[in-house]
Amino acid sequence: MSEHQRSVPRVGMVGGGQLARMTHQAGIALGVDFRVLAGSPGDSAARVCGDVQLGDDRGLADLLAFAKSCDVLTFDHEHVPEPVLREVEAAGAVVRPGRAALQHAQDKLRMRTRATELGLPCPRWRAVSAIEQIEAFGAEADWPLVLKAARGGYDGKGVWVVADPAEAAAVLARADDAGVQLLAEEKVAFRRELAVQVARSPYGQLAVYPVVETVQRDGICHEVIAPAPDLPEDKALRAQELAIDLAHALDVVGLLAVELLETDDGIVINELAMRPHNSGHWTMDGARTSQFEQHLRAVLDLPLGSPRTTAPYTVMANVLGGADPDVYGRYIHVMAKDPEVKVHLYGKEVRPGRKIGHVNVAGDDPADLLARARDAAAYLRGDQG
Amino acid sequence: MSEHQRSVPRVGMVGGGQLARMTHQAGIALGVDFRVLAGSPGDSAARVCGDVQLGDDRGLADLLAFAKSCDVLTFDHEHVPEPVLREVEAAGAVVRPGRAALQHAQDKLRMRTRATELGLPCPRWRAVSAIEQIEAFGAEADWPLVLKAARGGYDGKGVWVVADPAEAAAVLARADDAGVQLLAEEKVAFRRELAVQVARSPYGQLAVYPVVETVQRDGICHEVIAPAPDLPEDKALRAQELAIDLAHALDVVGLLAVELLETDDGIVINELAMRPHNSGHWTMDGARTSQFEQHLRAVLDLPLGSPRTTAPYTVMANVLGGADPDVYGRYIHVMAKDPEVKVHLYGKEVRPGRKIGHVNVAGDDPADLLARARDAAAYLRGDQG
Repeated sequence: MSEHQRSVPRVGMVGGGQLARMTHQAGIALGVDFRVLAGSPGDSAARVCGDVQLGDDRGLADLLAFAKSCDVLTFDHEHVPEPVLREVEAAGAVVRPGRAALQHAQDKLRMRTRATELGLPCPRWRAVSAIEQIEAFGAEADWPLVLKAARGGYDGKGVWVVADPAEAAAVLARADDAGVQLLAEEKVAFRRELAVQVARSPYGQLAVYPVVETVQRDGICHEVIAPAPDLPEDKALRAQELAIDLAHALDVVGLLAVELLETDDGIVINELAMRPHNSGHWTMDGARTSQFEQHLRAVLDLPLGSPRTTAPYTVMANVLGGADPDVYGRYIHVMAKDPEVKVHLYGKEVRPGRKIGHVNVAGDDPADLLARARDAAAYLRGDQG
Repeated sequence: MSEHQRSVPRVGMVGGGQLARMTHQAGIALGVDFRVLAGSPGDSAARVCGDVQLGDDRGLADLLAFAKSCDVLTFDHEHVPEPVLREVEAAGAVVRPGRAALQHAQDKLRMRTRATELGLPCPRWRAVSAIEQIEAFGAEADWPLVLKAARGGYDGKGVWVVADPAEAAAVLARADDAGVQLLAEEKVAFRRELAVQVARSPYGQLAVYPVVETVQRDGICHEVIAPAPDLPEDKALRAQELAIDLAHALDVVGLLAVELLETDDGIVINELAMRPHNSGHWTMDGARTSQFEQHLRAVLDLPLGSPRTTAPYTVMANVLGGADPDVYGRYIHVMAKDPEVKVHLYGKEVRPGRKIGHVNVAGDDPADLLARARDAAAYLRGDQG
């Protein structure tokens, strides 16, 4: 290795999904050494990255070995168990974000507890472990209620809307069997969902992106409009301040995505993520610094890049797998129809409903951009094939 | 391999330099399989690409084997000898651009001959192999003259400015010894240098980028201003038409870069390249479709992307190696000083004068952008270290 290479840090990303794949793209420009710990050579990032370590991206032994080969460890997902993170940190690895911060993205109960302590707006909520507690909370907050698993869940689900005590009791019984702690939340009458991303460096520098509107269906992010159209400036500022406050208070290093619900009165926190996030994919074609570059800059303690937008609006639509796996055959038509659409594919095997890519369209008119992004994503899925 | 993977083509790029590295970045988003034939694992592209074939990127045996593993072959450089290309094409490989087109980028005499046949503006020129021919041409075109090697050159040089017949005779003698064919050209009194890039697909679709101003020093591209400030629209259109005419006439597939000299009267062709080109690096942060994505789309016969600019001006400055190899240590300061500067490093060992990266800055005022890009590039080189 030449002399200058010694001063170039190696970033290790745990997990080989599309977030690692797109972080690799950003790392190429920065000239840093980027390595991925992936479960399989077919993983989205492992297909393109030059430096792939195969192993269990949630297991202690493989994480410890991977951490030894890297200057900084960061994450494509939030599924590394807390005890594993504790051991990795105890072994001296530089983990960004660290375990203490990450637990607030891993555990909804800790997140609600901490956000409430900080005086940040949340839906009414309560930790519940008996049906009497849920009934009492329902009497206050009104039915239907939302029940959430603090961590994980069962049957592949972690959120349930329950209409009455009987439905709540059924969820509670299954959760108890699965050893899952629940919390109850009021079902917020929201106008729309928003999200805001902030990057924070170990040094404490912050860069906050514009507040975006996210459109979710069946718990999956479908579309993002950046910035959120017609959002009053005071609400936007409040959302950005809230993200900044959280990033500082939780000592986040890297990207923090705060999913929000916009109500008639204001905004409340819905969920957190501490990594590049689906709500920030628009930045690849709509901001001076993409969220992936920003995440790398933050975890490397480099000065952060400008989060400035490069177009009045950018719309992102996720591409989900459809019945026909031949996405490549279809995207030719998408490209022909709209030369301004930016297609980002993840190299993943197509399965119905699976996120296999996204499209971005930037321009002046959010309604026009949304129609074009939807059209491209639907065509790629095969809905119009 | 899953079913959908079968329809995703594999593009093989011959050569592992920075152009292949940046094409890899673009290929990730397109979801195509991208493979590089590199001379060494330390090559710029080989450091980051997930699919690297090591071998001689100018030799027949390795090119034939590489071509067999790819659906389309394209190039990071123009140094594959014509007889090798002929054999690779004869073996049935899809080579884009093809040998017949590429020879015009490899051989200046063929380029001048063809451009003149097409009626496209060139400096006055003549193929010369005896001092009497040079003297006769000098009497017509005036001294000093420019002598160019049709292919290659000697002592690492391929262009010489000669003040008089005695200097010309010295160059001619050395060229003869080296078996190098020369052509003589008038020394054009140009105002500035321009370049224009056009992409052409096998289907014949074209996408042309705005004409840019390039600033060369010692034969190396230092800066690019896109679009070229204060260029009269008729000259800009003429330059774009000229590139389109050349791309069609030469049957170019992929990107064609035409380097031009702007004179008081108009424009003349200086050089050609048939690949992503230094004069197009600005597109990575200043155009809807980067030149690297565009090249991939063209060689894959995909519909071309929009070449539209995303900012009024984008300025690129090359980062050359300086005395101190610690570029990473310095770019922290560049990032801190100007969060809008986009740094692109090539992962290459630092050697004085070697291109090791570039910076892009986009915005409204070309003079301001140029000053900021120069400042960042100079700092990265270590001039202000």
